Amino acid sequence: MTPWISDNELGSAVSLTIGVVGGGQLARMMVPPAVELGIELKVLAEAEGSSAALAASALGDHRDREAVLAFAETVDVVTFDHEHVPQELLRELVERGVRVHPGPEALLYAQDKLLMRARLAELGLPVPEWAAVASVHDLAAFISAHGGRAVVKTPRGGYDGKGVRVVSDATEVADWFDDDQPLLAEELVEFRRELSQVLARRPSGQIVLWPVVESVQREGVCSEVIAPAPQSAGRLADVAADVATSIAEHLGVTGVLAVELFETTDDRLVVNELAMRPHNSGHWTIDGSTTSQFEQHLRAVLDLPLGVTGCRDPWTVMVNVLGGVAADKHDRRLAAAMDDQPDVKLHFYGKQARPGRKVGHVTAGGEDLDDVVFRARAAAAFFED
Amino acid sequence: MTPWISDNELGSAVSLTIGVVGGGQLARMMVPPAVELGIELKVLAEAEGSSAALAASALGDHRDREAVLAFAETVDVVTFDHEHVPQELLRELVERGVRVHPGPEALLYAQDKLLMRARLAELGLPVPEWAAVASVHDLAAFISAHGGRAVVKTPRGGYDGKGVRVVSDATEVADWFDDDQPLLAEELVEFRRELSQVLARRPSGQIVLWPVVESVQREGVCSEVIAPAPQSAGRLADVAADVATSIAEHLGVTGVLAVELFETTDDRLVVNELAMRPHNSGHWTIDGSTTSQFEQHLRAVLDLPLGVTGCRDPWTVMVNVLGGVAADKHDRRLAAAMDDQPDVKLHFYGKQARPGRKVGHVTAGGEDLDDVVFRARAAAAFFED
Repeated sequence: MTPWISDNELGSAVSLTIGVVGGGQLARMMVPPAVELGIELKVLAEAEGSSAALAASALGDHRDREAVLAFAETVDVVTFDHEHVPQELLRELVERGVRVHPGPEALLYAQDKLLMRARLAELGLPVPEWAAVASVHDLAAFISAHGGRAVVKTPRGGYDGKGVRVVSDATEVADWFDDDQPLLAEELVEFRRELSQVLARRPSGQIVLWPVVESVQREGVCSEVIAPAPQSAGRLADVAADVATSIAEHLGVTGVLAVELFETTDDRLVVNELAMRPHNSGHWTIDGSTTSQFEQHLRAVLDLPLGVTGCRDPWTVMVNVLGGVAADKHDRRLAAAMDDQPDVKLHFYGKQARPGRKVGHVTAGGEDLDDVVFRARAAAAFFED
Repeated sequence: MTPWISDNELGSAVSLTIGVVGGGQLARMMVPPAVELGIELKVLAEAEGSSAALAASALGDHRDREAVLAFAETVDVVTFDHEHVPQELLRELVERGVRVHPGPEALLYAQDKLLMRARLAELGLPVPEWAAVASVHDLAAFISAHGGRAVVKTPRGGYDGKGVRVVSDATEVADWFDDDQPLLAEELVEFRRELSQVLARRPSGQIVLWPVVESVQREGVCSEVIAPAPQSAGRLADVAADVATSIAEHLGVTGVLAVELFETTDDRLVVNELAMRPHNSGHWTIDGSTTSQFEQHLRAVLDLPLGVTGCRDPWTVMVNVLGGVAADKHDRRLAAAMDDQPDVKLHFYGKQARPGRKVGHVTAGGEDLDDVVFRARAAAAFFED
């Protein structure tokens, strides 16, 4: 062990002020590891009282050129709570010499599902059958060629079930078409379950993966995550890791990447969506892995060596707290949940209750999966109205 | 499981803004669990740029009556980064209806070692032989009655080796005596090693303990902690737990209590010091236990149900980073340490390097104690100048 390292043993100089554009719960969850590692975190929040308010050093919209440029001047590396910063602005940051992770060339594929599908297909990666459809007529042709149904997506701005619809008649989304922007049509994949492969990649190339997890969706929103995905050891885990690694490398992703996958009824894995930031399917890592996705994201965007991603328990289950309870009930429910489930870890995002809103999550770990699932659901249930 | 709880099922109403007097690393390390649990944390920091600056909502000295009273008005519960808030001020807070945890009656015994010794002796708890000595003459008599040596302590203000001296001649501390304040003289205990029993207690009475740990001191400062203490299972662990529980209950401690113990060469445990706050000997719990001492302290002072304290690994070792390296070297050393020890958790307190200063700590866990000790020391060594 040599407690000294020469200038050229490290890929790049390290500098320790990270700026996060966006003040949502992902930015909030970067605060604990930043405090622990002694890294300064600054957040450009949309408004007062954001989830990440504690670290907010500036207020401004992520599309506001002046606000983003001024914020970038106060930090060494810019990263994101979401993928919505416009390409032009991202590119201007890079031209000005700002370190941006993930960079615009990578983020493009998280911003535009049509470009993503085209690029993954070009790379030979497994994707559903798809087409860019510019009109009701095109879509009708796609539907009839794919068993009478299709998934239609707006290429940009879709999130958690919004901007996505399953249709059997092209006219159902007639109002989604406009002159400039084709839609993405995809075959309706018959899948057994949804999986997610999360990894982190440094600018200098190192990649570290967590085990592939099973993600349970309800009404288009992630509801539960089981880590690792049951019966995934071996081929399934290898393919998921290979696909995600290939995407990270070919797209030049830096920071955390989540690849959402369908496990089809005929035993294939196909890529559903990409997220280039810490992701709901990785929240279990805060309590369940030696290195959380939030710590790893900070390490990765600073080009620091990545931490190990071993699991602390054979099984970890994360359950989202959706909706939440009114502020005047929350404290009492918190006490009740802690009393009932003293070994479940509770996480809240400082958000007001609202039906369907992700206001927190809970995580349980242990050796018996049924028991772990039960405890996590039991704790989460205290925060249902 | 009933996701509903009536008003009288909980001991007290819960309210979720905690104020911490003092902006040191203990306040800083309360920030991550506060963020996770959705609890608001405010800190009264001594100055700009404190370790806990991120959560500092006010600046002021802990002895400044106006500053402390004004700060208390902005929070629901007051707790502490240290034990130095004067008794008069603590009592005034309580008289004004502020919830203060730990309260003045308990803190008194962490503030005054003579009162602590007298109280523990009265409770029949194991302490070294001791006396209040008001003069060189008294001390000389104590020394000659205890084998020609004694440990002399100033009852108030001693910390980490300061205000503590081993003497064989009473005149060595002649200048420590003044008219108002006797000194504490103690036998020099022949001990095999130092142990620490950390627990948390709620105002409504619940107590949860972590396993007793071994604490290695170098030059009067805690250097390493091994959890659990090797060869402590059984009687040793039981006695440590009983002694600490008894202290917590009889002294009415709320929040985290650390009881530092000597394991004597003749197999007894005797109480050395008390700390009524998260303690260096409990830092390992951040990474090594399901519930960290910082999360538990927040739960306890809010009278929320306490979390379980199981160990994540058979062995956890914490090594303090003392001194640290200059700011212009730190980033590179951080990268080197992460590269060399990707499974060691690194913690820094946002403090400038200074010889002997506690600027951070590292924690390793695993199944083989020698290996765990090696990895923790190896990581810490990167931050020695």
